[in-house]
Amino acid sequence: MRVLKLTLAYDGTNYVGWQRQDNGVSIQQIVEDALQPMCGDDPVVVNGASRTDAGVHAFAQAASVRVAFAHTPSTVRRALNVRLPADVRVLDVEEAAPRFHARFDATGKSYRYRIATARVPSPFDRWFVWHMPRRYDLDAMRTAASVLIGRHDFSSFQARGASVLDGWRTLERIEIARADDEIHIDVDGNGFLRHMVRIIVGTLVDIGVGTRPVTSMADTLAAKDRQAAGQTAPATGLVLTSVKY
Amino acid sequence: MRVLKLTLAYDGTNYVGWQRQDNGVSIQQIVEDALQPMCGDDPVVVNGASRTDAGVHAFAQAASVRVAFAHTPSTVRRALNVRLPADVRVLDVEEAAPRFHARFDATGKSYRYRIATARVPSPFDRWFVWHMPRRYDLDAMRTAASVLIGRHDFSSFQARGASVLDGWRTLERIEIARADDEIHIDVDGNGFLRHMVRIIVGTLVDIGVGTRPVTSMADTLAAKDRQAAGQTAPATGLVLTSVKY
Repeated sequence: MRVLKLTLAYDGTNYVGWQRQDNGVSIQQIVEDALQPMCGDDPVVVNGASRTDAGVHAFAQAASVRVAFAHTPSTVRRALNVRLPADVRVLDVEEAAPRFHARFDATGKSYRYRIATARVPSPFDRWFVWHMPRRYDLDAMRTAASVLIGRHDFSSFQARGASVLDGWRTLERIEIARADDEIHIDVDGNGFLRHMVRIIVGTLVDIGVGTRPVTSMADTLAAKDRQAAGQTAPATGLVLTSVKY
Repeated sequence: MRVLKLTLAYDGTNYVGWQRQDNGVSIQQIVEDALQPMCGDDPVVVNGASRTDAGVHAFAQAASVRVAFAHTPSTVRRALNVRLPADVRVLDVEEAAPRFHARFDATGKSYRYRIATARVPSPFDRWFVWHMPRRYDLDAMRTAASVLIGRHDFSSFQARGASVLDGWRTLERIEIARADDEIHIDVDGNGFLRHMVRIIVGTLVDIGVGTRPVTSMADTLAAKDRQAAGQTAPATGLVLTSVKY
């Protein structure tokens, strides 16, 4: 058996997220379905590095799949792009080590969150930003964000009902920048809890607009309780930008 | 009666074009419908500067409408944006002169056409570019484009069946530039025939990829016959960028 590493870009608007689910069409499902004809009766399981939520996008999701066929990587890329809908594209296919697993072997992931601050939002960005036309204190947001850098138990920033027992993760970088009529929040870490980026962004926005004090972030982190953190920012603004191995 | 000038941005993907038609929903119709509640029983007619085709987008379409109500321009903008779907946004509303007409008074329009040349197209741009992953001779395209600058009878670049009798228009500028994995063709003129930008782009692409000689453009223009020109580039790649008064 060979293992292939896929790099995928997708507009997540029309999907229930990366992971296969009963309540709608997932990216994982359509990629597996597109691979199936090359795999005959063999079961096809495509493991994604990040289980992006419904509506979350990817510039470069990584995924791995074990296959028995002999097609070259570029043949596989072309065949997949013919079969996949235009909102999911395979950017690259590579040979990987026989034991490579896109999720377990990932050493880091990067996400960007886009907040649109213009009075009237662009119709072209409506599925790709959180429209929040407010005044933001970026310095307050940066000060609060700096509290989160490093290795911490991020349980306060995990969706209620998520089943992960160990909330310890390392956040390597949070960068907050203005870009024309947008604020971009770039987050790098070794791994993320469910909704973690979106809850961090929602909490930073509360601090940025002044409804939550900048000094509160240390207590929020220490509480290890979802109720201590702010709102969950909507999925639309989030994109998985890269996965590190 | 007052006249208001509207500036609109729209993603044209889901519409039959600017102009009201029986076969589907137009931008004009939804803007008129959104204005109607403020106008009581008065008929509402919104005249757009450019009758953009189905699937063509606008960063800044201009439109005019005669109204009897006294609402301020910013109230009208806000009310329209509440009623309009998210793919159509009113960027600005201004008082205009009592005889202002967005189409007849326009002195110039600018369009951008985007050609995506990457092997694998971005899923995020699928409704906003023409995906043509070929090698282009940009110098040949620029040489051919220069033939079109100035005042000419552009009948060769008019959709078959279009009813305009006078094909004379002035093309002020055609700029062809590479931008990462795209080619941008920016066109400014005092007015455009039906499909004129798209037929010019299609003909320039034929020249750029070498299926049509660079020297052919003068003959194409002189022929005053649609059959002399190249293919009509798809609507997706085209956006109305501005209207001049």
